[in-house]
Amino acid sequence: MTLREKIGQLNQRMYGWNAYRRTPDGGFQLTEALYAETDRFEGLGALYGLQRADAWSGVDHTNGPGAEDGAALAELVQRHVVERSRLGIPALFVEEVPHGHMALDGTVLPVNLAVGATWDPQLYECAAATAAAELRARGGHVALVSALDIARDPRWGRTEECFGEDPYLAACFTEAVVRGMQGEPGEYFAADKAPVVLKHFAGQAATIGGRNSAESELGLRELHEIHLPAARAGVRAGAAAVMAAYNEVDGMPCAGNRALLTELLRDRWGFEGLVMADGLAVDRLARITGDKVSAGALALNAGVDLSLWDEGFTHLEEAVERGLVAEDALDTAVARVLRLKFRLGLFDRQGPTPPPFPAGGREVSTRVARGAVTLLHNDGGVLPVPAAVFRIAVLGPQSATTAHQSGDYTAPQRPGTGTSVLDGLRRLAPPGVDIRHAPGCALTGDDLSGIPEAVAAAAASDLAVLVLGGSSARTPDTEFDANGAARSAVSHMTCGEGADLAGLRLGRAQYALLDAVTATGTPTAVVVVQGRPHAVPEAADRAGALLTAWYPGPWGGEAIAEVLLGHTDPTGRLSVSVPRSADRLPVYYNHKETEYGGYVDGSAEPLYGFGHGLSYTSFTYGPPRLDGDTVRVDVTNTGQRYGRTVAQLYIRRLRTPVWPRALELRGFRAVGLAPGETRTVVFSRPATDAGTTVEARVAESARAALTAVPTQSFTAPDETPL
Amino acid sequence: MTLREKIGQLNQRMYGWNAYRRTPDGGFQLTEALYAETDRFEGLGALYGLQRADAWSGVDHTNGPGAEDGAALAELVQRHVVERSRLGIPALFVEEVPHGHMALDGTVLPVNLAVGATWDPQLYECAAATAAAELRARGGHVALVSALDIARDPRWGRTEECFGEDPYLAACFTEAVVRGMQGEPGEYFAADKAPVVLKHFAGQAATIGGRNSAESELGLRELHEIHLPAARAGVRAGAAAVMAAYNEVDGMPCAGNRALLTELLRDRWGFEGLVMADGLAVDRLARITGDKVSAGALALNAGVDLSLWDEGFTHLEEAVERGLVAEDALDTAVARVLRLKFRLGLFDRQGPTPPPFPAGGREVSTRVARGAVTLLHNDGGVLPVPAAVFRIAVLGPQSATTAHQSGDYTAPQRPGTGTSVLDGLRRLAPPGVDIRHAPGCALTGDDLSGIPEAVAAAAASDLAVLVLGGSSARTPDTEFDANGAARSAVSHMTCGEGADLAGLRLGRAQYALLDAVTATGTPTAVVVVQGRPHAVPEAADRAGALLTAWYPGPWGGEAIAEVLLGHTDPTGRLSVSVPRSADRLPVYYNHKETEYGGYVDGSAEPLYGFGHGLSYTSFTYGPPRLDGDTVRVDVTNTGQRYGRTVAQLYIRRLRTPVWPRALELRGFRAVGLAPGETRTVVFSRPATDAGTTVEARVAESARAALTAVPTQSFTAPDETPL
Repeated sequence: MTLREKIGQLNQRMYGWNAYRRTPDGGFQLTEALYAETDRFEGLGALYGLQRADAWSGVDHTNGPGAEDGAALAELVQRHVVERSRLGIPALFVEEVPHGHMALDGTVLPVNLAVGATWDPQLYECAAATAAAELRARGGHVALVSALDIARDPRWGRTEECFGEDPYLAACFTEAVVRGMQGEPGEYFAADKAPVVLKHFAGQAATIGGRNSAESELGLRELHEIHLPAARAGVRAGAAAVMAAYNEVDGMPCAGNRALLTELLRDRWGFEGLVMADGLAVDRLARITGDKVSAGALALNAGVDLSLWDEGFTHLEEAVERGLVAEDALDTAVARVLRLKFRLGLFDRQGPTPPPFPAGGREVSTRVARGAVTLLHNDGGVLPVPAAVFRIAVLGPQSATTAHQSGDYTAPQRPGTGTSVLDGLRRLAPPGVDIRHAPGCALTGDDLSGIPEAVAAAAASDLAVLVLGGSSARTPDTEFDANGAARSAVSHMTCGEGADLAGLRLGRAQYALLDAVTATGTPTAVVVVQGRPHAVPEAADRAGALLTAWYPGPWGGEAIAEVLLGHTDPTGRLSVSVPRSADRLPVYYNHKETEYGGYVDGSAEPLYGFGHGLSYTSFTYGPPRLDGDTVRVDVTNTGQRYGRTVAQLYIRRLRTPVWPRALELRGFRAVGLAPGETRTVVFSRPATDAGTTVEARVAESARAALTAVPTQSFTAPDETPL
Repeated sequence: MTLREKIGQLNQRMYGWNAYRRTPDGGFQLTEALYAETDRFEGLGALYGLQRADAWSGVDHTNGPGAEDGAALAELVQRHVVERSRLGIPALFVEEVPHGHMALDGTVLPVNLAVGATWDPQLYECAAATAAAELRARGGHVALVSALDIARDPRWGRTEECFGEDPYLAACFTEAVVRGMQGEPGEYFAADKAPVVLKHFAGQAATIGGRNSAESELGLRELHEIHLPAARAGVRAGAAAVMAAYNEVDGMPCAGNRALLTELLRDRWGFEGLVMADGLAVDRLARITGDKVSAGALALNAGVDLSLWDEGFTHLEEAVERGLVAEDALDTAVARVLRLKFRLGLFDRQGPTPPPFPAGGREVSTRVARGAVTLLHNDGGVLPVPAAVFRIAVLGPQSATTAHQSGDYTAPQRPGTGTSVLDGLRRLAPPGVDIRHAPGCALTGDDLSGIPEAVAAAAASDLAVLVLGGSSARTPDTEFDANGAARSAVSHMTCGEGADLAGLRLGRAQYALLDAVTATGTPTAVVVVQGRPHAVPEAADRAGALLTAWYPGPWGGEAIAEVLLGHTDPTGRLSVSVPRSADRLPVYYNHKETEYGGYVDGSAEPLYGFGHGLSYTSFTYGPPRLDGDTVRVDVTNTGQRYGRTVAQLYIRRLRTPVWPRALELRGFRAVGLAPGETRTVVFSRPATDAGTTVEARVAESARAALTAVPTQSFTAPDETPL
């Protein structure tokens, strides 16, 4: 390969939606922009977002590829790339799959924060498999997957992309997404499996003030204990690639951080896959190197193989000439890109045949949504909806729309897709129940004019279901940065990339609506649809019941209705602590065990803690028993209904060479029990660092574990060191 | 020395106020408790707080030593210790000198946050010298001095003990306190000089959530760049001792952190002084070692020489027997304690003769207070008080009391000590000016009943001076932890050790008072007396002028009155950024230079930034010139009055091996100018790390420096590495 051909393999400069346009007859034609790009490098290394559809790309059902013609478009582009390449090297088609493939007709899944709330990695593995199959069915190859960010500061707009605040839980879900999308580890990917790029590596959720892309001041120990375990698990599970994050680690942005990308990831962890930089992250390095050529050299030497949109990597030829990059370093990166293409079968004569578009997307998305619905409090039998309720008022700005329940990075949906809470209740409520609706107010702003109608509906009902929340939905008037982050959030946006929120508050009118509806005296169940834990302590104080389902995806309204009506037990458990207010952050459960922690003006405890979530029945946990390599505990359903609890195994370190955390999650098992039934839940004996003595506690939540009976202390088997 | 005698030298177990009691004839007698302690170790290593007086110790003018008899008490104790010691080894008397000696009749200085606002280390050196002379005059030896904590999260109750948020500024003041208290470096301390224990080492102000003694998650680079320079400067200046902090660094509490106390402090920095642990910090290590014996061993092996109140160090004999501590490690620590006693002349035949109690305490305290008064905004000539003002209403809960203007760790004051703002205005206002007063409300709580009186006074006046604020004053009903931190803050406490504050808000009635007074339309100058930057954006919005003087000490009211009346130009400059609200922390100016930083619901910028402070005149800064080893800039007074500006030299790193901060302070010079006068301010050319290219900017504040003309970029001379 010539130097130019090699460099072409390391670039992914083009926005995929600029590569085609619709023809009047409904087909596609390629653009001059694509020709120019393939001319420039005599081929094309990778193409980002060929099928991406959203407000930023401007792709919608009028002009973009859907499930039925995405594969044809991909084939058209690929044929051109291969023809243009002297050696016939095909391009990688890289697509955003943050919660389902972000393309027209891609099945939207609940966001990661909802996935985390299911505490069900097996279910998520199924969902991930479906998403990968959809991606491959329309000619995509590689899935960009949010998995590694650990939610430590809910002010960060991308909190919705995190599985939660806990490294162990995030590691379990990261393994699940790798297994689900990639299949069994092996050299070749099956036709319906997609190599994943796990993002973001590393520490991106720990930036100061919850500000996107700002610096992290984290120490390496904190990084290793909290922010790296998910990546470590993903690498062990065989992840094909990771994405170097924007933020810095120990003073250096990840894209230029050799200690991170090479010394840790490759040398210590033995990672053999690809490292892709986040969009324009390489060019940003020019701030300290002086120009984009040296920025590209810094990134390549640090361990970046494939760039995204940058100019810097297009100048690697000059970098080699200037002696900034050794050609064998370049060759190594090229080999990693080509190897991924080989593993995908792209060099086979015809390339892989896209499998049929899989069925079952809606069903698996709804199952995840159902598993995510988390009941935070429930006083006096407000829920499930009692048989004596004949009139339900369904209120609130989130109650009758699906537009805001799917999170950031969602493609335009076909009309009629999805189920609002109102839809769900209308469909599932017993015959004869009268359901009335009033939105009351908008998601944001101060307009109170709709509140009287909502109050009247509540006053005339036996139960009010008040659906409040935030939104990460972008519209064509959103302004975007060059990397697609929202620059100026549109009026209803309170979450998503670029939408960091200092106060964690919902729109002001929503609090007025909450006050007014609860003041009627009608029993009220509040549902919060959100991409981060907003601060809504008023709902905890005033409403009889409070649920969240995070952003549960298009069919989330149905899942919520099922839980409200008691068709299913609420099985969601918090994977992130819910603060009382933003001024007492951080509130994660796995802080260090220190003597102090309160404030003069209020508790430092969260409003609802990690692992919390109520059932419609109740459970007791017996004392845990250490039995060889296992910890066993008997769990009994002490209530009157079938229910499902998530038994959570925590360790508390006793003798240890460094200061311990209050608790650390080390296992979890869901168990469904009939009334009166007892079952023994079995965990592997938890491992930890050498020379550490621990005790194990099993409980329904972290807070309960603080007072739970521990197993007798024991010296845990060593973990494989990071 | 016997093992027991050696171990005695490393202990400082007793609370000094338990060593004596007043006799009916007004003298002192020693207690059984002291006899038991000196019996136990056949002598006494060190005695903490013999002269401490406050609510915790219960010492006040009825029972404690004052300026006139402190020396006699010390002599009485010392005679006993020497007699009890086989080798005649005297004890070290260690005293709290956080802002003046915390003893009856000790001159109270403004808190460090006010000291930092003066930007005048020479003045502080004078103040520190006075404090040391007072300490020695009454028989004390060693001064515990807050200097090293860097204010990064104003929620922390000890923010008042920090010089500010900037490492360079803190380093300058740390050098000043070492020079002022210890005098010229040398083997022996002069009779009026006191060896200092610089506290706290290290990173104590960076604990999560601003929670006292909680963990710090800081990385080593952040620690070195922000939290260690003051300690490094203090060590270079010859500080006799440092105190190991409570918090952890990289997973290990400082008192057990060998990497910090030995590898960094002694091996890399060459520190030859003493390391004292913070109170009970050694015993806390038992949480991870299993018992207090091994906790003591861990601390000693890490590098702690002298313990404070712990049980762990009393068991070092057992630790040696168990093989946990080598006797030569113990000998090294003993040698350090003894050496300090030699350097103090304690082994001289009679011991040092206490010098006379110095004069000038009040004057130097007032000078520091005057220098700290910081004018934050001033619209339309509200200040200085115009000649046309004949009626002034002095309002607010801080306006007529000195009880809350001195900060935490203040000894009881004799009646009549100090000057409130009301006192100061009454004394200094021109004859014929009518001054009326109403408090309006209390510091905390919701009682609005006093507001109408304050409103009436404001409405009937030409100017309202509204003095709001917080308090760190403890009373006998405060509950204390074993280390003297407030456990349950009393009702008016909003600051001080143990009084962390999530919301940063003043008492609620103060906001109502502010609203009501400004609503009268009478021009209003708000003064905030505080130990941390409280969030009072309402004052910025509604009052014509806004000042803070932090806790300016007993005579702060006089200093504030002088500035209000224009007797002196306001020369204070913020050493800490003032946030708009607690939910957008952190707000320090020297964050990394990143592209993003805003929130959907508001700016991430501080309300008032680092270095800010108005004069009653105005200045222009010419372009800086690089001239050999100097940076020069011409500063002109463009207004109509004499005034004093603080020219601030910042660097901005261009080419650098790690990601740069937005700006870094590297020099400052105050310059007083007559109207129309121009002077050239000269700075040393700033040094920085090898291989870094920087530009220098000179301006009136960090915010102004962001847009200031830079000098041409240059490669800075290397700094001596940390």
